[in-house]
Amino acid sequence: MKTLKIPEATIIRLSVYSRHLTDVDRKGIITTSSGEIADGVGVSPAQVRKDLAYFGEFGTRGVGYNVKDLRQHIMRILGLSEDWSVALVGVGNLGLALSTYKGFRERGFIITSIFDSDPTKIGTKIQDVEVQPIDRIEEVVRQNRTQIGIVAVPAAAAQETVDHLLKAGVAAILNFAPIVVNVPPEIELRNVDLAVNLEVLTFNVCGQRCY
Amino acid sequence: MKTLKIPEATIIRLSVYSRHLTDVDRKGIITTSSGEIADGVGVSPAQVRKDLAYFGEFGTRGVGYNVKDLRQHIMRILGLSEDWSVALVGVGNLGLALSTYKGFRERGFIITSIFDSDPTKIGTKIQDVEVQPIDRIEEVVRQNRTQIGIVAVPAAAAQETVDHLLKAGVAAILNFAPIVVNVPPEIELRNVDLAVNLEVLTFNVCGQRCY
Repeated sequence: MKTLKIPEATIIRLSVYSRHLTDVDRKGIITTSSGEIADGVGVSPAQVRKDLAYFGEFGTRGVGYNVKDLRQHIMRILGLSEDWSVALVGVGNLGLALSTYKGFRERGFIITSIFDSDPTKIGTKIQDVEVQPIDRIEEVVRQNRTQIGIVAVPAAAAQETVDHLLKAGVAAILNFAPIVVNVPPEIELRNVDLAVNLEVLTFNVCGQRCY
Repeated sequence: MKTLKIPEATIIRLSVYSRHLTDVDRKGIITTSSGEIADGVGVSPAQVRKDLAYFGEFGTRGVGYNVKDLRQHIMRILGLSEDWSVALVGVGNLGLALSTYKGFRERGFIITSIFDSDPTKIGTKIQDVEVQPIDRIEEVVRQNRTQIGIVAVPAAAAQETVDHLLKAGVAAILNFAPIVVNVPPEIELRNVDLAVNLEVLTFNVCGQRCY
């Protein structure tokens, strides 16, 4: 089977399209078009068609897309047909925000275990999940068959945390710690830097007068 | 002057390159190449050259790039030659995490004012910045000549918060509330959805077996 390299920007837009389609579906709308999706999310209709074309044929010429079918198809492409078990390490301000972030659960990401090194936090509960000590990561994550680890610890503890998660068998790591962590090539790693979002804004605010 | 539409993915990579160059510069390295930058951040050398080419000629054939110069140039392109004053609205878990997020200050984003509607939070200080009531947004943000507003309030309060910030004269809004907010076309708006980061991971973990 031919494997096309899918641009990350396409994946991110698919995520946006699926959210838009969820809203459209909730309004009871049955069919839509690339033009309507494009309007709804702020890209061009050609972009919508190009993004979807990576994954085969959708819709019917002259009729458009069935909203429910297209949404379901995109969710499957994104790997969201079923829930994912997520382990969260670190419940400082950011970890606490992530542990209660409604956007995760809505998309099927269920935080099934939470870990921290602070003895005053261990044993407390966050949304029914008990905070456990770091040295239990391997056992608990393996037991829960957790595939995704979120790292929200300080930079100095990040690599050690990642190593625990890898030993426990996770396939993917979302790293919020402001440091480069090392993982083997078969592990999916994504580093989140919240400042990048501000920089896209300042680039646009500045425009050409800045360079 | 000819205006090229710069892809957002390019802006995000420029941000990544500039962080890499900051690290390289700290190590005392004087010159670098597109190949070294590419290796350092995990893209192809051709991608590095293509991204930089949007903004004119850099470097010297056969010699490479001067690290300090290239870093400074990219920072200017991103609008980061000077600090930006930022207003933060909402100090729930996420707002609190953002208010103490070191990555903002490092890149020149200074949170100069913080607002919340909760009377128990108003008057408290977060890193020397006093939490003020929502109805002071317009006065304070205008006074500080703040250009960027970060919205970290619940969905139900997001549009009202945005409207206050717009009246106060901000040019850009970073919205963390899980809702579509409306702004006039001249205002830069970016919606942050943290779940998208997990979806890029699950897409890659699933691979072609999912679709």
